[in-house]
Amino acid sequence: MDVIETHRYRYRRPASNVTYLAHLFGVIAIIFMLVWLLHYRGGIDLDSDHANRIFNVHPFLMFFGFIFLVGEAMMVYKTVGAERKVQKYVHMFIHLLALCLGIVGIHSAFKFHEKSHIPNLRTLHSWIGIGTFSLFCLQWLLGLSLFIFGGSSIETRARAAPWHVVGGRALFFMAICAALTGLMQRATLLQPMMNKNESGLINFLGLAILLFGVSVELSISLARYI
Amino acid sequence: MDVIETHRYRYRRPASNVTYLAHLFGVIAIIFMLVWLLHYRGGIDLDSDHANRIFNVHPFLMFFGFIFLVGEAMMVYKTVGAERKVQKYVHMFIHLLALCLGIVGIHSAFKFHEKSHIPNLRTLHSWIGIGTFSLFCLQWLLGLSLFIFGGSSIETRARAAPWHVVGGRALFFMAICAALTGLMQRATLLQPMMNKNESGLINFLGLAILLFGVSVELSISLARYI
Repeated sequence: MDVIETHRYRYRRPASNVTYLAHLFGVIAIIFMLVWLLHYRGGIDLDSDHANRIFNVHPFLMFFGFIFLVGEAMMVYKTVGAERKVQKYVHMFIHLLALCLGIVGIHSAFKFHEKSHIPNLRTLHSWIGIGTFSLFCLQWLLGLSLFIFGGSSIETRARAAPWHVVGGRALFFMAICAALTGLMQRATLLQPMMNKNESGLINFLGLAILLFGVSVELSISLARYI
Repeated sequence: MDVIETHRYRYRRPASNVTYLAHLFGVIAIIFMLVWLLHYRGGIDLDSDHANRIFNVHPFLMFFGFIFLVGEAMMVYKTVGAERKVQKYVHMFIHLLALCLGIVGIHSAFKFHEKSHIPNLRTLHSWIGIGTFSLFCLQWLLGLSLFIFGGSSIETRARAAPWHVVGGRALFFMAICAALTGLMQRATLLQPMMNKNESGLINFLGLAILLFGVSVELSISLARYI
């Protein structure tokens, strides 16, 4: 066990190899996403006249702005070398940033639908996505009131902590499912218009997102073992 | 802690509420799947002349035959009231059955592709699916040689056990992602031909699969806390 406990402060657990892998897969996914949207799909622009460029904001912000940041926020206790209290605040602030960027990302999908006269919230992807995002907001508010504001006792915090961890991990799992169903939907719709290179790139992007999800989960699970 | 340890045998941990929820979501998903395939999609038949009926074997066996059984096998240590050794054998045999049914399920997708002149293994769904299934076979063989055959020492087993658990959970996560991307692909392709009822049914089926996945994961995570 590499955790050094001094009074109520816990210093950084050294990041394991899986944590480095998680960063790596996350960065690879961002690069693949940018190559896909900028090179093959005409760019990213929320104020464009082209509906597709408005749409492209959605996958970019939902992965880079939301899922990637949430994953990094979950691993803060292993990657940020600071007092427990500082780690907690960083964990909370990165999540807040992720939620704000996520809201812009969701807005871009609604804006694209409106411009293209497509009904909102009909697909499995949208149901998983909006459900997960709403629960994430709730989880953030609960976390804020329990662990940041000083109202609750040490015992309440200790009792709530495992549920906060387990709930957060379940929501992260759901967010990865939302991302992959969204990518799959887009790839299926674009299939007749795509060349082999783009189709391969999308598959590798999906694998990178999946492996980011798995390695963040492993990085957190294995903290209890190694 | 509700675990009763007597020498090397560990008796059943009482199933938590989350475990019952997992069974419930699993059964709901099977029912929704059957209603969808039998009522809306013309039935399930591997030897049919209709390509779609051959295809329908795939989602049915990959969920009921593979994912559902794997999830139940993972929860065996909480649901089967028997000696540790018996639980282990049940865990292994259910996985073996799941792998056999999974092979038939994968075969049906290839048979459908051949009949419909669709190339194999091109989509993100197929890459995630075939990758996950191959790793599951490897995981089963590793588990068999480490924990069932008597060659390895108690220390080796103790050191390998957390990796077996964590690896198995990661693969289960990936299997759920494979299922949901597959369902999303199918729903996107069928979109122009579907009425609102079928489209809603598919979304609820997807949610039931996702909630089965999340509750199996929670049932296993929470075993360490409650």
